[in-house]
Amino acid sequence: MTTTTTNRRWILTQRPSGMVDRTALELTSVAVPEPGPGQALIKVQHLSIDPTIRTWMDDAPGYLPPIAIGDVIRGGGVGEVLISHTDAYQVGDLVFGMLGWQDFFLAQEGDGLLQVLPPGVEATLALNLFGVNGMTAYFGLLDVGALAEGDTVVVSGAAGATGSCVGQIAKLKGAKTVVGLAGTDEKCRWIVDELGFDEAINYKTEPVAKRLRAACPDGIDLYFDNVGGEILNDCLAQLALRGRVVLCGAISTYNTAEVTGPSNYRRLISHRGRMEGFIILDYLDRFAQAQGAMFEWLAAGKIRHATHMVDGLESAPDALNLLFTGGNTGKVIVAV
Amino acid sequence: MTTTTTNRRWILTQRPSGMVDRTALELTSVAVPEPGPGQALIKVQHLSIDPTIRTWMDDAPGYLPPIAIGDVIRGGGVGEVLISHTDAYQVGDLVFGMLGWQDFFLAQEGDGLLQVLPPGVEATLALNLFGVNGMTAYFGLLDVGALAEGDTVVVSGAAGATGSCVGQIAKLKGAKTVVGLAGTDEKCRWIVDELGFDEAINYKTEPVAKRLRAACPDGIDLYFDNVGGEILNDCLAQLALRGRVVLCGAISTYNTAEVTGPSNYRRLISHRGRMEGFIILDYLDRFAQAQGAMFEWLAAGKIRHATHMVDGLESAPDALNLLFTGGNTGKVIVAV
Repeated sequence: MTTTTTNRRWILTQRPSGMVDRTALELTSVAVPEPGPGQALIKVQHLSIDPTIRTWMDDAPGYLPPIAIGDVIRGGGVGEVLISHTDAYQVGDLVFGMLGWQDFFLAQEGDGLLQVLPPGVEATLALNLFGVNGMTAYFGLLDVGALAEGDTVVVSGAAGATGSCVGQIAKLKGAKTVVGLAGTDEKCRWIVDELGFDEAINYKTEPVAKRLRAACPDGIDLYFDNVGGEILNDCLAQLALRGRVVLCGAISTYNTAEVTGPSNYRRLISHRGRMEGFIILDYLDRFAQAQGAMFEWLAAGKIRHATHMVDGLESAPDALNLLFTGGNTGKVIVAV
Repeated sequence: MTTTTTNRRWILTQRPSGMVDRTALELTSVAVPEPGPGQALIKVQHLSIDPTIRTWMDDAPGYLPPIAIGDVIRGGGVGEVLISHTDAYQVGDLVFGMLGWQDFFLAQEGDGLLQVLPPGVEATLALNLFGVNGMTAYFGLLDVGALAEGDTVVVSGAAGATGSCVGQIAKLKGAKTVVGLAGTDEKCRWIVDELGFDEAINYKTEPVAKRLRAACPDGIDLYFDNVGGEILNDCLAQLALRGRVVLCGAISTYNTAEVTGPSNYRRLISHRGRMEGFIILDYLDRFAQAQGAMFEWLAAGKIRHATHMVDGLESAPDALNLLFTGGNTGKVIVAV
């Protein structure tokens, strides 16, 4: 049974320029939908706040269609099945999927978008290490980046959900040196003292190019890029022979109309380098492999994560902006 | 026996900014060296004029050390053995190697830099299809670019020695559409009418981005980049899903201090693309494979080439500049 008769929904009212605010998004209320035959009503409990959501608000070609004006903001989340008229979902099941920024999601039997979670897996794990961030770190580093033992690895956004996981997996898989870039001294301490990174660079207060040269004297074998911009360019300048740049995201560019390309891309020629992008949706059928590894590392206490919990659906836009202001350490989740 | 007692040599006197001229290079004369035991004297006959020579004049990290101030300009060429005090070379042999911009080269037994050419192979072939350009086209397209049947291929610098070869090999290997970019209508006609490219775009007079969208409606599967700059950026914007950008050169940037990076690199993320550089020196031990293919295509009349011959060692700097002004069609060779 629903405990409320209204379903609050964040609607895209116009395409934002820069950070999202109330001129681009509006919190509206509609009646809670009534599930018909073959349908189930899901109460959204936790929303996964990811930088890529910002890119879906732009009217630009991407790996998914832009969110249409008037539509609910697209986003992953975990919810509980309240009412079910389908055998696919049992009342009480926790499910993960693209629930959207709203209180209730109407699931349709056979739409394949929802995954029932194993009982006992908390949303903070389901949405992070076992979810998109953990999977992105795992396949980006090992598959796209072809991490080899002894590699010198650099990761940006290193105190974020994906970046913090990348650095830890790199160490677990035999990287010689792992250097993380983050935007506060506290984050830098966290990734070194708690997560086992070898070095951290505060990109807001330190000279990045110089520090990279010192931390990676033999060059960067693998740079995992979450941010784009100047940091990408500085890492390219220090790329080792046959170095790989894994393009995961470009968070520094998502709120700007003018993107500056990496002028040091020519290093890819002289140093036989490779720069490659990927989208984690392509790896869905291999998630079990990575989730198994994650399970073992978690059980052995070898991998850690942090959650930055934000209260209330009404705060979802602010939660998204945290990613761009650097206000979070670890995974940003909205408790609806 | 030498027929002259002086050896003219082009010396780097200072690092050029922009195109090379007589302020950066000086033609000097020294005595012809006398070969000692284990040495041979080579008369340089033909010089291979390549864009990469310009990059060696900069004091910048590269795949080879910069040419030192006061040194002879480094460059590949074909010469004839005049005097030999080593079994490695017989008088009359034609040899290929880094002979440099000079009349005479003193070869040293065991230095491994010189390759004796099979009798009957003309310098215009040895320096082009069987040489660095043909090898670069072959391995760049097939190995780095992983050309697949049915691909839509775009190549810039398409009327140059490497680009003209790339387009022809792409067609021979089953590409669906091959589009070349060149800087004059005459070059455009040549690559379409004589070499079998499907389409040509005159990048100096036509709107490149728009023409690429029209010529490659399903996107570019493989872009072979010889030029960098805006054309690279325009091709990235039209990259197909899992498209590959083969970074061979960046001729548009070699004479400028300020390099603009490709702002559309983010397409590599959304479209799971790859941008990779290479240096043909890494493929030396596989040259025979490509030279065999080239031999068969030549014998069957399936591959063509053009030579832009420049007379006289004294004209070598002008010959190099031709590559940057677009004054050449096909391979630029200096007849010393």
